[in-house]
Amino acid sequence: MWALGCHRQAPAKSDTEVAKYQQAAARIAEANSSGQAAYQRVAALADLFGPRMTGSPALERAISWAHDAFAADGQEGVALEPVVVPLWQRGKESADIVTPAPRKLAVLGLGGSVGTPPGGVTAEVAVVSTFDELAKAGASLRGKIVLFNHPWPAAAPNAAAAYGQSIDYRTDGATRAAAYGAVAALVRSLASASLGAPHTGQMHYGAGPQIPTAALSVEDAELVGRLAARGPVTLHLVLEDGPHGTMTSFNVLGELRGRERPDELVVVGAHLDSWDVGEGAQDDGAGCAIVMESLATLRRLGLRPRRTIRAVLYTSEEEGAQGGKVYAQSHAAELPRHVAAFETDIGAGRPLGFRIDAGPDAVGDLRALIPLLAPLGATGVDTGFAGSDIAALRPAGVPLLGLFADPAHYFDVHHSVADTLEKIDPATLGRDVAAMATMAYVVADRETRWPASPPPPPEKKP
Amino acid sequence: MWALGCHRQAPAKSDTEVAKYQQAAARIAEANSSGQAAYQRVAALADLFGPRMTGSPALERAISWAHDAFAADGQEGVALEPVVVPLWQRGKESADIVTPAPRKLAVLGLGGSVGTPPGGVTAEVAVVSTFDELAKAGASLRGKIVLFNHPWPAAAPNAAAAYGQSIDYRTDGATRAAAYGAVAALVRSLASASLGAPHTGQMHYGAGPQIPTAALSVEDAELVGRLAARGPVTLHLVLEDGPHGTMTSFNVLGELRGRERPDELVVVGAHLDSWDVGEGAQDDGAGCAIVMESLATLRRLGLRPRRTIRAVLYTSEEEGAQGGKVYAQSHAAELPRHVAAFETDIGAGRPLGFRIDAGPDAVGDLRALIPLLAPLGATGVDTGFAGSDIAALRPAGVPLLGLFADPAHYFDVHHSVADTLEKIDPATLGRDVAAMATMAYVVADRETRWPASPPPPPEKKP
Repeated sequence: MWALGCHRQAPAKSDTEVAKYQQAAARIAEANSSGQAAYQRVAALADLFGPRMTGSPALERAISWAHDAFAADGQEGVALEPVVVPLWQRGKESADIVTPAPRKLAVLGLGGSVGTPPGGVTAEVAVVSTFDELAKAGASLRGKIVLFNHPWPAAAPNAAAAYGQSIDYRTDGATRAAAYGAVAALVRSLASASLGAPHTGQMHYGAGPQIPTAALSVEDAELVGRLAARGPVTLHLVLEDGPHGTMTSFNVLGELRGRERPDELVVVGAHLDSWDVGEGAQDDGAGCAIVMESLATLRRLGLRPRRTIRAVLYTSEEEGAQGGKVYAQSHAAELPRHVAAFETDIGAGRPLGFRIDAGPDAVGDLRALIPLLAPLGATGVDTGFAGSDIAALRPAGVPLLGLFADPAHYFDVHHSVADTLEKIDPATLGRDVAAMATMAYVVADRETRWPASPPPPPEKKP
Repeated sequence: MWALGCHRQAPAKSDTEVAKYQQAAARIAEANSSGQAAYQRVAALADLFGPRMTGSPALERAISWAHDAFAADGQEGVALEPVVVPLWQRGKESADIVTPAPRKLAVLGLGGSVGTPPGGVTAEVAVVSTFDELAKAGASLRGKIVLFNHPWPAAAPNAAAAYGQSIDYRTDGATRAAAYGAVAALVRSLASASLGAPHTGQMHYGAGPQIPTAALSVEDAELVGRLAARGPVTLHLVLEDGPHGTMTSFNVLGELRGRERPDELVVVGAHLDSWDVGEGAQDDGAGCAIVMESLATLRRLGLRPRRTIRAVLYTSEEEGAQGGKVYAQSHAAELPRHVAAFETDIGAGRPLGFRIDAGPDAVGDLRALIPLLAPLGATGVDTGFAGSDIAALRPAGVPLLGLFADPAHYFDVHHSVADTLEKIDPATLGRDVAAMATMAYVVADRETRWPASPPPPPEKKP
């Protein structure tokens, strides 16, 4: 659970550090008070390139743009690092109620899904709301299309937690339904609000049979659920989706070199790719803007830290975080010198604080340092999953930190056609930049570094 | 402006009436406290028939169902009255940005629009936010596609007023753009919230050239507006839409005959047709449920009023209120005996009161009677447009009353794929039934009737 407010159990050292960095924090916040600089970056991503799905020319153009933007900002170590990414393509998709009466449904295939057989699949639907109900239905599911109509858990501590409680239906639903002989799996969109649009997202197959899988809009999942309560419902599902080999894409790097220990690194990352619906404004264009503007702010203000801050804009997060995995592999020799890795991938809501996945020293220090962000209202510290792209650094014991933006409306738009620029407030985005830039600067600049320590057991995304 | 609260300037007579009808009002409210009976009616419309556009088999099936439901409820005078309705058909529709970079837009043709020429139309877009800006652009609009990107006026007193301030862009935009030589007109969807879905609605041509016209989602109207601020934007628009003759549909009538003056009538109406997106749950399935359950409640409770209450479920409201017009024509001889006409066509929000369009006697009496609805919180009285279907009764001087449900979220879903059943709260719908049934009963039962008087000058919908 996300704990608001500040938990201070600070050693005297950190109190001194808060005092030491207060002026820098204020300058960073002031420089981002309008948020316009960051906003222009996410606007460019949304407007010049639009949706940036792995494999799309738009993503590769956005990667070039980000590379050139780092160079124009005067960053050091600007580089494109190749990443072989899996391609998955969406083709023609449709879902129609056949009986009791024809009706067109709003459907969106899940990333990674195989396609339906030629001509699609027509079968009776079995509606379940939990995996327990699935197991109870058991053998009766053979030959059917399973619909997981799991309501959004609005009682969860926050929307990110609600998403975490729901995501297995999307990622594992097909595999678990296939185990009972289902021919396809549909999932109610994971959405905190809905006005008719389905939400896509990645899924994963297990060892068993692979069946096609897609999301229905909340409205249409409810409709099918109601109809099935009245009598048998038959659906016709067409998903001309599927894997299509691989290609080489790129992570984009830019650095603010450290003034004393440039070989020690603090990573600040986000992902440039998005889904193919909407324009990836909040997922994760906003994150890219926060990362780019954090580095640019520190450089403009002459805040060169003791260690190097390396911005990494990852490719192909949505299709399995391939960019993050390849970064960890190709920088394996450097990982012991990775002091910390930050990620921002939860939209453009107001900053609430950080989520940290690290050993107790780092957690304690973060709690001691977080009052620096009090002027931004971002003094929350929580432990748990910090980000998909930096997760690959976890086995090396790198302390991981995720900027926690208010997720209250993020899952209204996440992975859907509604993830668009006009929902981002520039001044709020500026506060996100200030929170990220300040904390990255302090961690990169402070005298002591956190020990690489075996982190606590993994927590589920997010 | 909608005035909340009760404006009592009651003659003593009406105070007595409030006391007289308080028990009936309480019984009606109690009978609808769960709202389940009304909810099952709108659920049937949404689930058994789905969208019910004029000309669709689904609408004609819903008409038969409503006829049979009135009969099953034991209503008198159950009848189908023929209405020749105009047919308009939606064909293939698409809108794509061609330059600066390809992008698919969310588009929905407006009812009544002509189609584009074969192959569609490709032209530069000119973005305006008001008719003033249109006039200023003047001759520069020749050969262009005009986009009316008029923001939702969130500062309006309520969402219905905001809709009223915006509707001319949808209804008249094409005609006004055509006057400057535009080849097509697009309008930002009239929506109080948006998650990617466009909102359709009726448009009207004037005397000049007829150009095709459609709505873009709020997101895509904003996108085109931003891109046009960066440089020229070319769109390719295909609308295989257009008029397709006429057919005979039906209004559905059912009555609770008056015990003393059965030839004097109080009409209570809503419309059975909807647009072809969503399932017409709030527009106006909810209204139909309110009307049907109002009559059923009064009959079940043995509350037979002095005069006849006639429920009318109109056809083809969305395509020009043809059902309402034909009702006025075919019942012309009866109109002097129409004591009042109620309509409910603003969704399933909590009842706030009534909007009345009538002479001062009726307005004053309504204000005196409205405290009857205090237990429902529905004591607001406003003057103004009372409803599209009953508007045709206005020239005959029939006092018109519209149930005013809270419109705060109605225009989030109105005329879009998001107008679906799961957004309706049964208990709230039950309060709408209670408000409507109580006021219709009192107006039909009270000793004196309102004079047919020339009403004040017309106000714009809604």
